[in-house]
Amino acid sequence: MPQFRRGDRVYRRLQEEIGRNTIRIETDGEEIGQVNGLSVISLGGLTFGNPSRITARVRLGRGEVVDIEREVELGGPLHSKGVLILGGFLGGRFGKTRPLSLNASLVFEQSYGGVEGDSASAAELFALLSALADAPINQSFAVTGSVDQHGRIQAIGGVNEKIEGFFDACQTTGFTGRQGVIIPASNIKHLMLRRDVVTAAAEERFRIFPIETVDQGLSLLTGLTAGEPDAEGNYAAGTLNQRIAARLDAFAVKAAELARNAAGMEARK
Amino acid sequence: MPQFRRGDRVYRRLQEEIGRNTIRIETDGEEIGQVNGLSVISLGGLTFGNPSRITARVRLGRGEVVDIEREVELGGPLHSKGVLILGGFLGGRFGKTRPLSLNASLVFEQSYGGVEGDSASAAELFALLSALADAPINQSFAVTGSVDQHGRIQAIGGVNEKIEGFFDACQTTGFTGRQGVIIPASNIKHLMLRRDVVTAAAEERFRIFPIETVDQGLSLLTGLTAGEPDAEGNYAAGTLNQRIAARLDAFAVKAAELARNAAGMEARK
Amino acid sequence: MPQFRRGDRVYRRLQEEIGRNTIRIETDGEEIGQVNGLSVISLGGLTFGNPSRITARVRLGRGEVVDIEREVELGGPLHSKGVLILGGFLGGRFGKTRPLSLNASLVFEQSYGGVEGDSASAAELFALLSALADAPINQSFAVTGSVDQHGRIQAIGGVNEKIEGFFDACQTTGFTGRQGVIIPASNIKHLMLRRDVVTAAAEERFRIFPIETVDQGLSLLTGLTAGEPDAEGNYAAGTLNQRIAARLDAFAVKAAELARNAAGMEARK
Amino acid sequence: MPQFRRGDRVYRRLQEEIGRNTIRIETDGEEIGQVNGLSVISLGGLTFGNPSRITARVRLGRGEVVDIEREVELGGPLHSKGVLILGGFLGGRFGKTRPLSLNASLVFEQSYGGVEGDSASAAELFALLSALADAPINQSFAVTGSVDQHGRIQAIGGVNEKIEGFFDACQTTGFTGRQGVIIPASNIKHLMLRRDVVTAAAEERFRIFPIETVDQGLSLLTGLTAGEPDAEGNYAAGTLNQRIAARLDAFAVKAAELARNAAGMEARK
Amino acid sequence: MPQFRRGDRVYRRLQEEIGRNTIRIETDGEEIGQVNGLSVISLGGLTFGNPSRITARVRLGRGEVVDIEREVELGGPLHSKGVLILGGFLGGRFGKTRPLSLNASLVFEQSYGGVEGDSASAAELFALLSALADAPINQSFAVTGSVDQHGRIQAIGGVNEKIEGFFDACQTTGFTGRQGVIIPASNIKHLMLRRDVVTAAAEERFRIFPIETVDQGLSLLTGLTAGEPDAEGNYAAGTLNQRIAARLDAFAVKAAELARNAAGMEARK
Amino acid sequence: MPQFRRGDRVYRRLQEEIGRNTIRIETDGEEIGQVNGLSVISLGGLTFGNPSRITARVRLGRGEVVDIEREVELGGPLHSKGVLILGGFLGGRFGKTRPLSLNASLVFEQSYGGVEGDSASAAELFALLSALADAPINQSFAVTGSVDQHGRIQAIGGVNEKIEGFFDACQTTGFTGRQGVIIPASNIKHLMLRRDVVTAAAEERFRIFPIETVDQGLSLLTGLTAGEPDAEGNYAAGTLNQRIAARLDAFAVKAAELARNAAGMEARK
Repeated sequence: MPQFRRGDRVYRRLQEEIGRNTIRIETDGEEIGQVNGLSVISLGGLTFGNPSRITARVRLGRGEVVDIEREVELGGPLHSKGVLILGGFLGGRFGKTRPLSLNASLVFEQSYGGVEGDSASAAELFALLSALADAPINQSFAVTGSVDQHGRIQAIGGVNEKIEGFFDACQTTGFTGRQGVIIPASNIKHLMLRRDVVTAAAEERFRIFPIETVDQGLSLLTGLTAGEPDAEGNYAAGTLNQRIAARLDAFAVKAAELARNAAGMEARK
Repeated sequence: MPQFRRGDRVYRRLQEEIGRNTIRIETDGEEIGQVNGLSVISLGGLTFGNPSRITARVRLGRGEVVDIEREVELGGPLHSKGVLILGGFLGGRFGKTRPLSLNASLVFEQSYGGVEGDSASAAELFALLSALADAPINQSFAVTGSVDQHGRIQAIGGVNEKIEGFFDACQTTGFTGRQGVIIPASNIKHLMLRRDVVTAAAEERFRIFPIETVDQGLSLLTGLTAGEPDAEGNYAAGTLNQRIAARLDAFAVKAAELARNAAGMEARK
Repeated sequence: MPQFRRGDRVYRRLQEEIGRNTIRIETDGEEIGQVNGLSVISLGGLTFGNPSRITARVRLGRGEVVDIEREVELGGPLHSKGVLILGGFLGGRFGKTRPLSLNASLVFEQSYGGVEGDSASAAELFALLSALADAPINQSFAVTGSVDQHGRIQAIGGVNEKIEGFFDACQTTGFTGRQGVIIPASNIKHLMLRRDVVTAAAEERFRIFPIETVDQGLSLLTGLTAGEPDAEGNYAAGTLNQRIAARLDAFAVKAAELARNAAGMEARK
Repeated sequence: MPQFRRGDRVYRRLQEEIGRNTIRIETDGEEIGQVNGLSVISLGGLTFGNPSRITARVRLGRGEVVDIEREVELGGPLHSKGVLILGGFLGGRFGKTRPLSLNASLVFEQSYGGVEGDSASAAELFALLSALADAPINQSFAVTGSVDQHGRIQAIGGVNEKIEGFFDACQTTGFTGRQGVIIPASNIKHLMLRRDVVTAAAEERFRIFPIETVDQGLSLLTGLTAGEPDAEGNYAAGTLNQRIAARLDAFAVKAAELARNAAGMEARK
Repeated sequence: MPQFRRGDRVYRRLQEEIGRNTIRIETDGEEIGQVNGLSVISLGGLTFGNPSRITARVRLGRGEVVDIEREVELGGPLHSKGVLILGGFLGGRFGKTRPLSLNASLVFEQSYGGVEGDSASAAELFALLSALADAPINQSFAVTGSVDQHGRIQAIGGVNEKIEGFFDACQTTGFTGRQGVIIPASNIKHLMLRRDVVTAAAEERFRIFPIETVDQGLSLLTGLTAGEPDAEGNYAAGTLNQRIAARLDAFAVKAAELARNAAGMEARK
Repeated sequence: MPQFRRGDRVYRRLQEEIGRNTIRIETDGEEIGQVNGLSVISLGGLTFGNPSRITARVRLGRGEVVDIEREVELGGPLHSKGVLILGGFLGGRFGKTRPLSLNASLVFEQSYGGVEGDSASAAELFALLSALADAPINQSFAVTGSVDQHGRIQAIGGVNEKIEGFFDACQTTGFTGRQGVIIPASNIKHLMLRRDVVTAAAEERFRIFPIETVDQGLSLLTGLTAGEPDAEGNYAAGTLNQRIAARLDAFAVKAAELARNAAGMEARK
């Protein structure tokens, strides 16, 4: 069992609220457009991990990825930069041959303080891509890591506290044996976990997945193949990227259809 | 009869103003696009509940949900975040296959100070959906609770004071036996109400309804079925969600018709 | 004759400026898009009423109601909120089946300090609706009261000083026997007027009209019937609301015609 | 000859710069889109009048009246309000039956400090209307006065210093016997001019014209009839208002033609 | 040879950097969309002239003249005002009968501090017009002077230091006998130049050209006739203004063609 | 081996993080839309070079080059000015005969502090042009230098520290013999490199390439010919500039096609 230092009270309180569902964290089942993100809170002498439910919703629109924390000035500049980078990735991968006729909104649910740092940008991207692909995300996992404009996962700080924070949340809500954490491969060298987490990992009751790319993370979270583009830049049917491309095409077609109805309907006669 | 502590005077004054209709709170009848929201005010040693009339109006437009408190900088960041989340919910549920050709405006009527926190976001969403569905809301109820992007109702603070505040407002304006409060299910564990409220609840003269989703709340407030989407994402006729979808479709058709008139009329000849 | 307390000098000066037409206040005749609004000024120990000429102008445009005080940051948040609410009312009543193809501008003429509070929102709405309906407003009246998104008139503060301020302005410019003030019905209980005003009111030389809705006020100010919508939402010919709807339709037709000319003219050949 | 008090040096310097053409003020001839405006500067114990060249230029555009002082934050809120009011007047008079397809820019030329107050709004409106009508303005005149949304000229402060400032500028650049100042009629009661100005006015070497409306000022400045609208809202040929309306119509036609070319040209075949 | 006062070191350093090409100033040859501007820097007891390379580039766009210094808040309000005035001139001269379908960007190259004052506005306008006309500007000249909305050149401060600054830069980079400075005619009376500059001017090795209008400056800088509009507002072939008008027409045609392709191509069949 | 002074610890830590891949810097291979940029950090008595991965992504859009550091207020005004200048270059070269239907985003990856100065603007432009041309950039190089609106490379500060910083990063990640740095030609005179760098350069194990234009840099980084425009402004097939122009044309065609589908499809019948 973990040993608690000073500052514990707040941490224990947080875990209790998760246990009582005042703060809603799911550690089982699957949801579309929702992922467990991980941040750290520093308080007194203690730094502890803080799991957050990150949600994304998409609709027909004009290509905007709305970072709600930023809109209301609860997100710091590094968080905002992370979301803009994620938009750069989306545009670079899917926006060269089709317009991005979507509006997406990203939220840290039940987060009432500020959000800073880019360590949730991979998680936010997964939530967004899940919403676009209508592909459910396994809630047994939590994610940490930042992402660059080319979809590479980059190292983040506080990796141990973040893993332990989700481990404790799973303990609070009940271990299932299917739970675990997805982290940047470049953070493996920083791992120095509590003994109980190490043991659980060794017994494969709680797993740690290092990833290098967005596509590796997507596959883990959805159980589906991400898919590689062929020579024409198309993805094989059934892959996640093909589903995302198809959704974006559907949005573009719908947007064009609406404009067409508006502009051309009368010209038929 | 309730026992009053220090700070009472302000609270009693507030209730008087409700009684004299200087501050207009309806606790009976029904209205379209209007709901009783609940907030708390802290003053000296006392925290008391403060019922507010929340209104929504909709018109043809470009998909904006205007948070009037935010526009004039009377709404804090958490309130603004709540309204943006509510927009994310609306877009995610109704905006995938149709454009959101509406403009909606949300107001805390006769609220002259700042509004903070997200505990009115469910109430604001109900007012908005009522305006869209042209479905009257039962004014015998007051609502508290926050909502996430997927329409789940989340726990809020000050649940006891809020319930007592509306109970007292009903006492001031006259108990009807049909009054009550809608709260998040995850707040039930926090209930520690005044004896008179407990008694009234026990005798079913004043009811407390815990809800987990937006649709449960909508059904309670309007007496209508919210409705579940079928495989194609359509709602059964007569359900609230079908009425909302129909209104949004009518707006989209009208918007397209206007554009069509503008662009194509002459092409007929 | 009224008894003056300290702070009088400023008040007497203000009344003189009105008398000499340096500050232009009309207390007779009728004007389109102009109404006498009432605010209060607090100075030293004295609070006195301050009549203001509020004007509105409309043109073809994109649905904006421009609050000029807010544009130049002379309007406080509560004043701005009042104007936004008035826009919500306009959109909700007239904007469901037609686009609002207008630009309207609202001004406190010859007001050089800040404007705060929502107690002029009803007056501003009357000026706007008069401009839209091309219906002259009786300048013998002054108006105070706030309005909600559903067009209900709400209580405001300083009702006595406001009434007395306009009474004195009428005295300065000359009593006609046709003058009076329109106030919220919910403010009747607050009336404690100076003896000379009470006497004038008793003798019907200066009248006080309590109203509950925008439509009641419009009828008083224009002498025309406001009109109720029929089942299809249309208003009877000759009513004010029908004239407003007709103007908005004319704007919408003109806007569509302009777009049509632009887009389709050549297609004829 | 005028008697100089303390603070003179700055004033004399200013007049010298006008005389040497470092600051360009024209007091003879005529120019399109240019008018002499008048403001006051307070320095030490002295308040003196400061003539300014106000220019306006117009082009095809989207209906904006750009207040360049405001754009660069050199204009105070009251100045900005004045320009917005002037836009309200323009829209109300000309914008009900035609789109305002213009961009206009207003500048205080060679003004390097801030501009505050609304006392130049009439002058700015004259410059704008001159540019629209292509009607030259007599540079022998200077103008002071504010304007309301209905085109009525309102009283301003410092009327004596302003008149004397232009009188001195004429003396510097050379009296022609045709010079004079246009002021609000409601400022006549404030006139207390220097003896030399009074004498010059009595001998009709320097004239003071009180006006009540924009149209009166326009006629004086251009020597043309402003024109009254007939029942259909049209103005007689050759009047200024007809020329302005014609220019706005030409802009609207050009704007429509451009859009037509873009949208419809190919449809001919 | 010039005599140096205190503060010299910075000035000499600046001239050295020009000599070594760390700061790039061209004093010979010709370039499209580039002109030598002049500003002054005050340091300790010394005010010295600072030549700057000002560049302009144009592309198809929506009529914006982007002042890059302003965009990044390195330009003060007076500089920004100058650029807006220059836009007013461009719109007034060329924008009445054609849309301004351009985007232009103006830059003080290698300027790392703030830019204030309007004394470079004429130079900026020349750079812009050169880019529009594709007409090379003689780099042997430097320009100072502000411009009003009607294209008149106005007096500026520090004319002597500015001239001397460019004289010294020419000395550093090598006198060619073709170099000189263009200044406002209204600044001639302020000339009090160093003896070496006076001598060079007397011997016509370094010339000073006073101008009153934009067109005079353009002719000097490009060696081409600016051109006067005929009765229909057209310019003779081969003149600079005709080339500018032709470029703007080409942009407008291209913009219309693009829109036409988009909107009408299919209608052919 | 380099000699370390005070402040070393931070520098050594930075190099370690690069070596351990916590901060990702590639010094071999090639990538599209990615280049090694160089900045300096001053800390205590030490100024050292800091290599950064700069990425660019492009998509269909409205002609915006989004500077993500600026969007989130992490970029200082000089950095922002550099990116705007780069946009001016792009528009001036490619935007005269075609619309810029692109959205591009530029990022300093894993940069968590502010970015200031314009010394990375050439590198940012190379990343952008690589993304547009789909031409891989040699990661063996790092780039420093600013760019003007005409594509000329300008001198920057700290050239020695920047070169040494990349040299050390190559040492950390492993020398390949193919590595080197691209610098402005006008900085050659400032070179005073550490002995180890001088030796490596002499032995051609680490090369320093001075450039004067964007095109020279592009050729070095991609191994492709940049290409000169012919009389009609077209570039020869296979050149980089032709590939960029082709991509922009493809975007413009796609944008037009989308608009065409929307507007004209029905007109076929």
